[in-house]
Amino acid sequence: MKATVVGLGLIGGSIALDLKKAGMVSGLIGIEANPEHARKAVELGLVESIDSKKDSLSTSDLIILAIPVSALSKLLPSVLDSVKKDAVVIDAGSTKSLICRAIANHPNRGQFVASHPIAGTENSGPEAAFEGLFRNKTNIICERSKSSAYALGVAEQVFDGLGMNTIFMEPEEHDKHVAYVSHLSHVSAFLLGQTVLDIERDEKNIFALAGSGFASTVRLAKSSPDMWAPIFEQNAEYLSQALLEYIMHLQKFQYYLMKRDGKELHRIMTEANRIREILNGIEHKQPKPVVEK
Amino acid sequence: MKATVVGLGLIGGSIALDLKKAGMVSGLIGIEANPEHARKAVELGLVESIDSKKDSLSTSDLIILAIPVSALSKLLPSVLDSVKKDAVVIDAGSTKSLICRAIANHPNRGQFVASHPIAGTENSGPEAAFEGLFRNKTNIICERSKSSAYALGVAEQVFDGLGMNTIFMEPEEHDKHVAYVSHLSHVSAFLLGQTVLDIERDEKNIFALAGSGFASTVRLAKSSPDMWAPIFEQNAEYLSQALLEYIMHLQKFQYYLMKRDGKELHRIMTEANRIREILNGIEHKQPKPVVEK
Repeated sequence: MKATVVGLGLIGGSIALDLKKAGMVSGLIGIEANPEHARKAVELGLVESIDSKKDSLSTSDLIILAIPVSALSKLLPSVLDSVKKDAVVIDAGSTKSLICRAIANHPNRGQFVASHPIAGTENSGPEAAFEGLFRNKTNIICERSKSSAYALGVAEQVFDGLGMNTIFMEPEEHDKHVAYVSHLSHVSAFLLGQTVLDIERDEKNIFALAGSGFASTVRLAKSSPDMWAPIFEQNAEYLSQALLEYIMHLQKFQYYLMKRDGKELHRIMTEANRIREILNGIEHKQPKPVVEK
Repeated sequence: MKATVVGLGLIGGSIALDLKKAGMVSGLIGIEANPEHARKAVELGLVESIDSKKDSLSTSDLIILAIPVSALSKLLPSVLDSVKKDAVVIDAGSTKSLICRAIANHPNRGQFVASHPIAGTENSGPEAAFEGLFRNKTNIICERSKSSAYALGVAEQVFDGLGMNTIFMEPEEHDKHVAYVSHLSHVSAFLLGQTVLDIERDEKNIFALAGSGFASTVRLAKSSPDMWAPIFEQNAEYLSQALLEYIMHLQKFQYYLMKRDGKELHRIMTEANRIREILNGIEHKQPKPVVEK
């Protein structure tokens, strides 16, 4: 199976490494808009070669799109225009509604599998890619019934090869849940970082006083604006709703804080403590062996 | 040196373990209000024995107070009443203004060293204690000039024994900075946890969709309300100010989100990215060898 990965950053690069490791592809071509990233990706062995003319889009059996969601919704229709019969196109975008809408009526819709392999780190670019990023994580496939059985089969093989557990959802449902569980935590980290940088601007105290708790809470503020600005824009409705609820909770907390109502603060925190069980669930996700093909 | 540790949770228990390891104390007594914790602390070897009558407060050379800050400001004056001449009392409270005020005019003020060893995890109780919790972390001593030279010397020996780097600050300055760098990140995590629990109440999706990023951002929501409610109450002024600024940043972000102003969102995130250098500083704090006494 000849494969092309479009976008050789953290996600695309890590998928390429895992596909190669699993022996699922015989040729691995990369397409990358940033020449420095392209050079680096070959140097790091993420792909065998770079296709600067994008010819491989029409000759590959498998095309994986790992580019910012704004570029994705623009590019996807023309990719589906040019692919060969029976080629399978898979995306890795963190939003799904707009992307699915962009190709809803495309004659080759069946060749596309709308996917969101949920994994990542706060780092970006080809040097951030690593083998095993996706292992034991969840992948979401949207509009399952709109993909051909063949395309779905190939996609499941790919995600199995990555060691992922695939579940199915509708795009709107997906976008709503990730707004709360993923996008909101990125926003909260970005703005927490901003707030602390603002107040500590002229002082070195932040270095001395910040502990591992602060580092953990604000870690996602290191994430790539190039990747996240389009995600936030595309998921603005649901994210805004999540943000409003978060702000409401913060304001209620502040109200009790100003009243020095320790009992109510205690009650709120005790409720939030229930997250412990959920976090334990995330941390103890059972390892799933990588399927060797 | 005979030492008593009051409060055998994560902080007190870990201090006890490190003091013993460093060979700084010849007898290590514990005082603990919770009988189950007291039993556990002896079983785990955190202290040699439990003093349920609190007699050791008047016979120890070193008394370490590692109890919630509300209990601390109440208890501290009577502890200073009862200590023997030349005994040294050190606290580990996360707020400093109210605590320093509580004993400002106490005749034995000089025997007290107001301290905040900045370390912790989201876990609590004696079973959460471990050796090395404080190594390479920062300790803050407040109102240095109000402690006797002898008391200060003993305290520095203790914190050196823990492997900490001690800096000096005034209580108000301390409380303001920790509001931003520590307390605010706890509040943001608690309420992020609450927001997500609210929306995902009846659904299992949170388990599948939450990744390591969410887990990292919300980790502090597992923290102990018994410990944190009094801290937030005592630092309500500065924390409320920090919270207001955080909420303001979130609202500004939401405004640009609703305008679909990706450029402005990008700019805000790029600014927040500067936190990367600071976080690298935290992560790469140079190891400092534990001083063996």
